[in-house]
Amino acid sequence: MTQPHELDASTLAARVRSGALSVADIAEALIERVTARDPEVRAYAYFDPDLVRDRARLLDSVPRKGPLHGVPVGVKDVILTYDMPTGYNTPRYAHSRASIDAACVDTLRAAGALIAGKTVTTEFAATNRGGPTRNPLRLGHTPGGSSSGSAAAVADWQATLGLGTQTGGSTIRPASFCGIYGWKPTWNSISREGLKMYSATCDTLGLYARSAADLELLADVFAIDAAETPVPASIGGLRIALCRSPVWSKALPATQAAMAEATALLRAAGAEVVDLDLPEAFDTIHESHRIILRREGRSAFLNEYRQTPDLDEEFKATVENRAGYTAEQARAAYRHADLCRAMWDDIASGYDLVLTPSATGEAPLGQDLTGDASFNSMWTLLQVPVVNVPGLVGPSGLPVGISFTARRYEDRKVIAMAELMGRLIAGRPAAAA
Amino acid sequence: MTQPHELDASTLAARVRSGALSVADIAEALIERVTARDPEVRAYAYFDPDLVRDRARLLDSVPRKGPLHGVPVGVKDVILTYDMPTGYNTPRYAHSRASIDAACVDTLRAAGALIAGKTVTTEFAATNRGGPTRNPLRLGHTPGGSSSGSAAAVADWQATLGLGTQTGGSTIRPASFCGIYGWKPTWNSISREGLKMYSATCDTLGLYARSAADLELLADVFAIDAAETPVPASIGGLRIALCRSPVWSKALPATQAAMAEATALLRAAGAEVVDLDLPEAFDTIHESHRIILRREGRSAFLNEYRQTPDLDEEFKATVENRAGYTAEQARAAYRHADLCRAMWDDIASGYDLVLTPSATGEAPLGQDLTGDASFNSMWTLLQVPVVNVPGLVGPSGLPVGISFTARRYEDRKVIAMAELMGRLIAGRPAAAA
Repeated sequence: MTQPHELDASTLAARVRSGALSVADIAEALIERVTARDPEVRAYAYFDPDLVRDRARLLDSVPRKGPLHGVPVGVKDVILTYDMPTGYNTPRYAHSRASIDAACVDTLRAAGALIAGKTVTTEFAATNRGGPTRNPLRLGHTPGGSSSGSAAAVADWQATLGLGTQTGGSTIRPASFCGIYGWKPTWNSISREGLKMYSATCDTLGLYARSAADLELLADVFAIDAAETPVPASIGGLRIALCRSPVWSKALPATQAAMAEATALLRAAGAEVVDLDLPEAFDTIHESHRIILRREGRSAFLNEYRQTPDLDEEFKATVENRAGYTAEQARAAYRHADLCRAMWDDIASGYDLVLTPSATGEAPLGQDLTGDASFNSMWTLLQVPVVNVPGLVGPSGLPVGISFTARRYEDRKVIAMAELMGRLIAGRPAAAA
Repeated sequence: MTQPHELDASTLAARVRSGALSVADIAEALIERVTARDPEVRAYAYFDPDLVRDRARLLDSVPRKGPLHGVPVGVKDVILTYDMPTGYNTPRYAHSRASIDAACVDTLRAAGALIAGKTVTTEFAATNRGGPTRNPLRLGHTPGGSSSGSAAAVADWQATLGLGTQTGGSTIRPASFCGIYGWKPTWNSISREGLKMYSATCDTLGLYARSAADLELLADVFAIDAAETPVPASIGGLRIALCRSPVWSKALPATQAAMAEATALLRAAGAEVVDLDLPEAFDTIHESHRIILRREGRSAFLNEYRQTPDLDEEFKATVENRAGYTAEQARAAYRHADLCRAMWDDIASGYDLVLTPSATGEAPLGQDLTGDASFNSMWTLLQVPVVNVPGLVGPSGLPVGISFTARRYEDRKVIAMAELMGRLIAGRPAAAA
């Protein structure tokens, strides 16, 4: 029999509503799973079985059940929770507790979610240096970062849903490496209040699930507009842009093959897939992303710099602007990003959806580095919705995700496409795995 | 003899460093002042004399004195403080304590500041409905909003410095109405982590002081770049644009006269003052500001909406998008704002500084409404630094501020100009007051 922690959120919440399952049952299954698996995977920075049981009892006592009632959610450890510490994977906050919830956690609780624990992040969600978390699909490999723990927890059935963040590629890359759905919403369409800030222009809440239907449920919970964008009912007839992006030279054979396979599947299903070469202005967008992060990081980490003498050199260098970026360069980078954003709206209007890589390839070996965000940071700066679709597999047997994107606020369309594509991949005649 | 609470921050901190004054002395003078005056002015939402004394003792025991050592700072009640409640002037958070500091408070504490208390805000710093605070210069009038309490406290010597926020005109307008210096820095040049969010594009920390020198000290504390922008040493020879802005028709006689007087003073001091008519694109910038606030408010207040059945109708209307703004309108508003920002950089490059109104006129009578932000919201959306200079007086004897602005990151230049202008106003032959 399928255990509660293996079910997706929609099914879980439906069973809780019908009375077939209590939140206490879900909690016990979750605790058993985490106890068995987390010593190996190390997805959680904080997991307190007694607290989970207590919250489950509370949720069982509430007569009116929410759309996520009893669904376990792993929360990245840079997102405030009133009943658990928030550690940011940095010494200063090792035992820090805020007595308030981040806005997104507050909204999840209003929907009945069971906050399961805090998941491992890289330091301040702002470095590529890996934390303790291992890729649950192959423990010697990175799960990606910085939302390492949430991605690993969801992939490993240690949480049904997960919250991450993305400033470069911190949500989509781990989703690709761990073989799950990952959604970076349109910038600011979910509140970032109560999250560690790094770059106000790029920081975005990220969400993980094991099905596209669960992302849709999350879109409901977060009141993402459903009325505005027509959502595709089938792949046939869709006009899809294949955007290899200005960093295509970084694509390893695994990603090259995944993109080719996705294109073939889409065409076989009746979609028109056309190459999209971006205008020249996009060639330097990664440099503007870097300058904006360096500029915005100066104010984001100033208080840590002033309060923490042994702050990591990477953050000190940012606050001190050791790279020497000038105000003129910052203004030019913002102007460039703004221009590309306007151009992107025009370009994307010509297609139903845009297909693009999620990562350079499979999850690299080792935990020291979390991988390369080259294929993500452009979309983050453009502030557009991106969903990673799992299901394709690379030469060494690890997942290789593909991403769909569109214009700002077209999140519902992108999620619907992810659902169609997920089914298409699952149903293909000769699965590569 | 001048009492400690009447001194400016630079003088206070210098006396603490030299040992001439203890922080305990400052605390007692402050407590006495607040006890005497706040029953009338109502600037503070939270003021605990015992806590202030305790913090003062702690600061006196620290051997290494910071640049703001012992300087009392009033903190707007939408900014988190670990040792005081944060109430947002809304029922849900009436007794809420976050147990963490906002990044800006953390930085101030690292500089030795004495956090005096929490100052009155309008609800969530997002409405024009006034709170209890009265204008200390004439109690029947509004102090402006939403940073009502911080502006009133600084003007009334109940705090030496004050923290506010600005999304429309919430820092500059109260500074103008209360006759103090107010600084809205370049967007995101001071971290907004730990502040209530409303509009990520517009929300900015604001700062109050009774001298421009104190704003400069705050710019040091917040590591605002000093190297990049040449700072004027005198007014003679400066090329200053007089920007009446697209809403000049809203200027009352008080503001019309203040702008004329400021222009005459500048010219008499040897500046070239030239009219700046903005390109047509700026005519509709207020509409784009409104659309962006309405869009961003949807996610900013969603958690309150879900958790608080009796949330004020104004916030419900925003979350439900009752105004019916579409995604297309939102994209167009961002594009328009981005375009104006780029144009502004080009326009402002032609001048040393830009002079513009701070408010429509003197502080209106009554506490129900906090006044009109028409002259501020354009600059907020443009994300440029603005400093209000006090000293001019309207026909009914209340202050009328004037503002200086420039390009993003030119905060130091704008503060230096405010200092020069403040001296010019103070030293004019026939003071209107």
